[in-house]
Formats: sequence, C-alpha cells, structure tokens
Amino acid sequence: VEAISETLLKMSRGDVKTIARSITIVENELDGFKELLFSLYDTRRTPVIGFTGPPGAGKSTLINALIREYSGAGKKVAVIAIDPTSPFNYGTLLGDRLRMSEHFNDPNVFIRSIATRGSLGGLTEKTIEIVDVLKAANFDVLIIETVGVGQTEVEIAGLADTTVVILVPEAGDEVQMMKSGIMEIADIFVVNKSDRDGAGAFLNNLQKLVHSFPEKGWITPVLATAAITRTGIQEVIEQIEAHGHSASFNKKKSFVLLEKAYRLIQKKRMQDINKVKLHDEIEKAILASEFNIYRFADCY
Amino acid sequence: VEAISETLLKMSRGDVKTIARSITIVENELDGFKELLFSLYDTRRTPVIGFTGPPGAGKSTLINALIREYSGAGKKVAVIAIDPTSPFNYGTLLGDRLRMSEHFNDPNVFIRSIATRGSLGGLTEKTIEIVDVLKAANFDVLIIETVGVGQTEVEIAGLADTTVVILVPEAGDEVQMMKSGIMEIADIFVVNKSDRDGAGAFLNNLQKLVHSFPEKGWITPVLATAAITRTGIQEVIEQIEAHGHSASFNKKKSFVLLEKAYRLIQKKRMQDINKVKLHDEIEKAILASEFNIYRFADCY
Repeated sequence: VEAISETLLKMSRGDVKTIARSITIVENELDGFKELLFSLYDTRRTPVIGFTGPPGAGKSTLINALIREYSGAGKKVAVIAIDPTSPFNYGTLLGDRLRMSEHFNDPNVFIRSIATRGSLGGLTEKTIEIVDVLKAANFDVLIIETVGVGQTEVEIAGLADTTVVILVPEAGDEVQMMKSGIMEIADIFVVNKSDRDGAGAFLNNLQKLVHSFPEKGWITPVLATAAITRTGIQEVIEQIEAHGHSASFNKKKSFVLLEKAYRLIQKKRMQDINKVKLHDEIEKAILASEFNIYRFADCY
Repeated sequence: VEAISETLLKMSRGDVKTIARSITIVENELDGFKELLFSLYDTRRTPVIGFTGPPGAGKSTLINALIREYSGAGKKVAVIAIDPTSPFNYGTLLGDRLRMSEHFNDPNVFIRSIATRGSLGGLTEKTIEIVDVLKAANFDVLIIETVGVGQTEVEIAGLADTTVVILVPEAGDEVQMMKSGIMEIADIFVVNKSDRDGAGAFLNNLQKLVHSFPEKGWITPVLATAAITRTGIQEVIEQIEAHGHSASFNKKKSFVLLEKAYRLIQKKRMQDINKVKLHDEIEKAILASEFNIYRFADCY
C-alpha cells in the first residue's frame, strides 16, 4: 500500500490513475478510505459549480460546451455526474453520459459518474467525499451535475459554491410552482434552448422574479443559451467567475461547509445501523405487542 | 388541553377540525406532539398511495380525477401534497394546488400541503408522521403527491405502499436514463396525456421494459390515461386495488416500515444538533488550525 503522502503528491500533480483509484477507495469505502479523507486539506480552494434542472433541459449538452471552453483555455476540469438512487437493491445505475464522451481523451478533463450504495451512506455524503478528493488534485474547476428536480436540487445547493439552475422556456409553470425554493438555490439561471418559442416572455418573467427577491449581495443573472450551437456559453463562464468574486460567495461557501459537516455527523451517527438487523427487530417487535414505530425508534 | 384518547376518538369519527389540529401539532412539533405520535396504532391499515413524476406530467389533474372517483363511490380520501424544500431560510412554499380546489367543499376529501422547516427534520420524516396521524382518522385511502423527479421520488417509495409513477409520452429519454431506478420504484406506470403523438410507441417501450425486469410477485402494469378528459381513471383505481392484493404488497409494506424506522432513528439521533451552534464551532475550528471536516465530524 502506497503512503498517503505519496498519493496526495501524485494527485496534486494530476496523476489520473491515482485520482481514479482514490475515488474508488472513497466511493466503496475500501481499506484506507478514512485515513485518506482525514488527510485532505482544502488549500487549493477549487471552486465547485453545481448544475441542476429538470430532465430534458440540456444539462449535459451545456456542460459539454462549458468543458470545451474551459479545456480550450487550458483549464483542468473534473465533472461528477450524479445518478438517481435505487432504493431497493442499492444497485448502481449506468448513467447515460454518452454526450460527454467527446472529452474522454482530453487530458484536461476528468469525468466520473457516481451512484449511491445504500449502506455506505447517501448520495450527498459520497459526493461530499469525492469532491474533497478531487480538490486535492490539480483541477481548476469542479463541476457537479444532478439529474432531476426536487430534493436532489436542494442538496446540490449544499454542495456547490455556485449553483447554476438550467431551465427551458416551457418551464414557466414549474418555476411558478417552486418559486422561492428555486430562487434560493439558484446563483445563476440559464434558460437553455432559448431559440424556442416563448423564450423571450419566459426570460422576462424570470428577470422580474429575480428582482422581486431580496438582495443577498448578488443579483442572480438570467442568461440565455442554446447549448447545442454553443451560443451564450462564454457568458455563463463569465457569470460563474463573477459569482466567485461576489459578496454572496463566501456566505455560500460557509453554508456549504455547515451542510457538509451536518451530513458527515449524520453519517457517523448512523453507521452502526444495519438495515437487515433492524428489519428483523421490527418484525419481532410487531409480533410481540401492539407496535408503535415512534416508541420503537425512540428506544433504539 | 384535550386528552389524547379524546383526540383519537374524534379523529376516528372523522372530525375535520381535530384532524387538522393534530397535523398542525405534529407539523410544528407543538406541545404534545410526541405523546400524540406515541399513541398512534395502525389498526385500520389504510392504504397509502404515492404519486410521483416530472413536473408537467399532469399529476394534480390525475389525482383530481381519482379523488372524484373515490368520493363519488362514497370513499373518504386524504391527500398530502409535498412541496419542494427551501434549504436557506427554511420557509414554507405556497404550493400551487389550485387545481384541487374543486374538492375543498367535499366532505369526503381532506387536502393538506406540507413543506419542511429545516430544524424540525426533513420532509420525509414529517410526511411519515403526518401519514400516521391521518391513518388514525377514518379515511379509506391516503394519497401522497410529490413534485419532481429524483431523490423525492425515491423517498416516496419508502413512504407509500403503492407507488404510481406518472409519465408523459415525451418522457422517452428520461425513462431511458433512469431505467432501473424508476422500475424499482414504480408499482404502476401511468402514461398520461396518452392522446399525444408518440404515445403508442412509448407505451410499447415501457411494456417491454417492464417485462424485461425480474419478477417480484407483481408485473407493473402500464396504463394509458388522459386525465383532463378523465379517460382511463377507473383502470388506475382497479390496478391500485389489485396491487393491494398482490404478493408484492406485503413485502412493500415491510420495506416501508423499515425505511420509516430508519428515518425516525436518524431524526432522533440528530435532534441535539443546532445548526447555528455548529456553524460557530466550524468557524472557530477553521481559525484554530488546519481544518479537516472529516476529523471535525468524527469528533463531534
């Protein structure tokens, strides 16, 4: 087994094999994973950019276009693509990341899909750990992509220093529905497929919504893109950069750190719970007497 | 303060004010909430039906049509509509439930929107508790509606005895993307807006997908509806009923119980954590020395 100092040195020099192996160790909680995590320091302060939005909004296409820009400018980018969880068999899903495959041979780009495996903690806890491993490597920017809207979206806001919410012009109703939730999550709005009908009206409404919310040291910009023709990509990069220098960025970083700590404490406090054993105990309790799950949980 | 036995009696007789007040007590963790939860027994075994699917799939319209059928048949229905969480200020969102407003004066129908309030535990934990309160009332069926796809969807599967996944013909790509995840969640597929182009092909593909998955004592039916014209609603009700009598239903109930217990234990173990205090401690730790969040969480 390689010494941790050696692993960290290789990662900081961008050794792809070492980076990939370190992620595997952390993802699967193999021997030495705890020691590795205990040795990580966020000295490089690599910015973490989260991308979220409903399926079909063109997240992968947009991220693809951004990667190309970053890489073209000589920047090293790591992408973590998060797959939806399977609650029943705790299996891994094969993410459809084919649209990012053009970058597989680009030495500036590192892409990894992750999915939860039940007993090893939730998706968010694993993502936190993998982000920290990647921060020890020599990347200039880390990108997290989530599929879906709802809970995952909220959780990405507790992971990423800058959260980009990607919408399409047809999303009018959804935005109406999740108004304040989405407003508090989004540091940048991107309306993709902005060449479609109704894009102008939607952009206007979103602008109004943004300005109707209280100041937080940063007015969430509303950007129009057409990722498939790489239109508007440069402005997305500029606004990510601008957010990184805004007053709200440090507050956000501090919030992210708090959420991370909370999740890790939760993971630690639940690590002794074995679901198979818990299941047996519940079955036994049900047979023994009138069952009340709150009393059961309270005494566990 | 009313005695708990009196509260339970009134609830079992369908006293709407008592039901609403009990939910408020539990939702806001007011005086007596723990005693109330400790007094609940699932003797009535009211079936819990979860509805999930992407925004725009027509969940509310479909649920609306189902409520009308149930109520028309003299059944008492409670609906819990779950709003997306706001992670920053822990505020409540005003859900857009106007489409259900036609039932507001129907004595057979009880509708309640809920949203999380950070410190009082996550959305899932609150939903668990409110479901159990409603089970103590005299409803024939409980309906849970979530907005979104992703994590929430997965969590609903750990709450509902029968999960109905609502899709639209345009969802082809999404289903491809989340294949096994969605297959494991869905007890029933409903393809709504099935009068649209491409519905036939999508239904066929979904049928093939369903049959390519291993037997679990229940073959997930694929149903076509057009909720807006109330087409196919009766069949949805029949299949919900059929799932309730299937071999997979008891397995599912057992899984739901396990997930509930896990969540409640987690809530209990985290209840001493005050995020404001935690934040201060992190800030202090960062100033004191080189900060490693894993060591910090490990010693907390």
